[in-house]
Amino acid sequence: MTIYFDNGATTFPKPEIVYREIEKTMRSSSNPGRSSHKMALESGRIIYRTRELLAQLFSINDPMNIVFTQNCTDSLNLGIKGVLKKGDHVVTTSMEHNSVIRPLKTLEERGIIELTIVEGDNRGMVSSLDIEKAIKPNTKMIITTHSSNVVGTLLPISEIGQIAREHNLIYMVDAAQSAGIYDIDVNKSNIDLLAFPGHKGLLGPQGIGGLYIKRGIELETQREGGTGSQSEILSQPLIMPDRYESGTLNTIGIAGLGAGVKFILEEGIDNIRKQGEKLTQYLIEGLSKIDKVIIYGPKDGERQAPVVSINIGEADPSEISFILDNNYDIACRSGLHCAPLAHKTIGTFNRGTIRFSMGYFNTIEEGDRVIQAIEEISKWVG
Amino acid sequence: MTIYFDNGATTFPKPEIVYREIEKTMRSSSNPGRSSHKMALESGRIIYRTRELLAQLFSINDPMNIVFTQNCTDSLNLGIKGVLKKGDHVVTTSMEHNSVIRPLKTLEERGIIELTIVEGDNRGMVSSLDIEKAIKPNTKMIITTHSSNVVGTLLPISEIGQIAREHNLIYMVDAAQSAGIYDIDVNKSNIDLLAFPGHKGLLGPQGIGGLYIKRGIELETQREGGTGSQSEILSQPLIMPDRYESGTLNTIGIAGLGAGVKFILEEGIDNIRKQGEKLTQYLIEGLSKIDKVIIYGPKDGERQAPVVSINIGEADPSEISFILDNNYDIACRSGLHCAPLAHKTIGTFNRGTIRFSMGYFNTIEEGDRVIQAIEEISKWVG
Repeated sequence: MTIYFDNGATTFPKPEIVYREIEKTMRSSSNPGRSSHKMALESGRIIYRTRELLAQLFSINDPMNIVFTQNCTDSLNLGIKGVLKKGDHVVTTSMEHNSVIRPLKTLEERGIIELTIVEGDNRGMVSSLDIEKAIKPNTKMIITTHSSNVVGTLLPISEIGQIAREHNLIYMVDAAQSAGIYDIDVNKSNIDLLAFPGHKGLLGPQGIGGLYIKRGIELETQREGGTGSQSEILSQPLIMPDRYESGTLNTIGIAGLGAGVKFILEEGIDNIRKQGEKLTQYLIEGLSKIDKVIIYGPKDGERQAPVVSINIGEADPSEISFILDNNYDIACRSGLHCAPLAHKTIGTFNRGTIRFSMGYFNTIEEGDRVIQAIEEISKWVG
Repeated sequence: MTIYFDNGATTFPKPEIVYREIEKTMRSSSNPGRSSHKMALESGRIIYRTRELLAQLFSINDPMNIVFTQNCTDSLNLGIKGVLKKGDHVVTTSMEHNSVIRPLKTLEERGIIELTIVEGDNRGMVSSLDIEKAIKPNTKMIITTHSSNVVGTLLPISEIGQIAREHNLIYMVDAAQSAGIYDIDVNKSNIDLLAFPGHKGLLGPQGIGGLYIKRGIELETQREGGTGSQSEILSQPLIMPDRYESGTLNTIGIAGLGAGVKFILEEGIDNIRKQGEKLTQYLIEGLSKIDKVIIYGPKDGERQAPVVSINIGEADPSEISFILDNNYDIACRSGLHCAPLAHKTIGTFNRGTIRFSMGYFNTIEEGDRVIQAIEEISKWVG
């Protein structure tokens, strides 16, 4: 049985109810929001229930302000390209994933926007004061991750949200690594756009993501097409969420996501967070006793998402992850994790790191196996 | 047991192997193309296998020229917005779905493109000569559906492809209603961009679609982000298919789609087409004997996709579909089917039609039940 410590890429396994809900939905439902027969109506209800559950999880007032997308990258692209117009300036951080950096760099290369990337420190911490200092007269938007996918560092999203509000800027949060693990309240944290994947902390399948769009924010649509609503008009309808949801939705993905969110609400997000903190702290403490092991990030279970990035001496991370997979059946990820600037920030660019990312179903015993494996490997490499 | 005649919205049921493949994949796989442990590599293999099967089905030389998207609408938007630049002219038809018309109208409204919509006749036929006549010096692209989602009318895609080639234009085909039912050969028909959904004729689940991009065609990316490749660069990688596939792919959807395409290749696309033709012809003949029933489209099983659109006298289509669902447990679709111009073309705009769309698992006996139901209903409405 594989010890799966690659939950930052995708959580595995999912709760049994997620599998069962997908199975049930695919064997019984049809196309939501199109036809009006019983099967189509049931698909529509499944989708609305998932919207309601997500609204409850993120303290969103109106479930219709949640838009379903293909994945978190799709959500981020919709938010970024939907907001930014020619001449706008945007502030982001060096801890972002390529899903934020690449759309922004593309807009910059196309001559549309001006971009400031605020540097984090060598633990991946980003100061909200530095973000405030980067604001210019033409700044339209601030975009930050909630937690680094490389070292888990948590960013002060509520402080940044407050700054955005004071300066009348749109604040977009990339919750790729935090949704379903941390309590996110879009109102309290002044979040205008919240992008989240379905297949990570929210415990749904791959192929589904979402974007919360605060009422009053008008995005330029990125995809137009059939919505099942206002079929008679040739322009994209303005009603929410149809405006941003063209084409047939991923009904089974949304059903599975709903089951995942239901599981989280029943377990309690605080319990999920504490379980992650405990295992993260355990791993940090165990690994820090091993000679030659370098641990990156805050090194504090309460100040980082359940992600621990390490290196062993001068060894190549991909070699270590190969040995872990091959000799110990431990699945983790090595390399740059699609976040090159974060590695420059913590000092691990070009080599990257070995990343262990924990999920709710990982145990202390599995943590012991990881620590023991690294201890053994460190005796003959690095 | 519901008699399901709404396969034009989404096919139901799927072959048993599609359900089993999704079940197996979601319980065992992880994130493709990111990490290098056994589970991640297996996900990568599943995705490549589906690319190969699709390449076989559409006679595509290189599987890496197929890009996975969220749905056919997503594919169409990528093709349309990826190709068209300021000042370009595009030719399309009045038989298109809103998934083609709305992105084009949006680009027209934004002042980017010039658009000509070639009218079909009252059976939904579009003449390739009319398309050729619409070509102007600044024409960049021709986009047509392969078959109308309203009346099934087949468009002469090989003739149009030939015209596009002669005029050095890009030809994009919307195969939403034809992929998996008709033999499509992208080379023989001179198709440069082929957009297809996974959940209709290809018998996969919702939430997955694809776009074939002929080698040499460079699209402006619509979404950038993590690709798991060239993580060190901040710009979108240029390699195929990563360039157009940002963020985590829908692994279970792609696995299910692969199983659907495998089923089609094993059954034989000719057998699938003939089964559709037979049932379509049977329905046309049976329904045409009923007083007050008006049948739209070519009224020839071999000249239309397995779709039959009707009205009963002056009755409201939504009333009929409600009775069919409620009293007969027959699922179909009424209204405009997201294609308002097609209804103007065939003379059914504002009211729409009642649409029966057949799949490979429908039977003659079910066709009889539909004919009988319409006969009964026609006695007291319309």
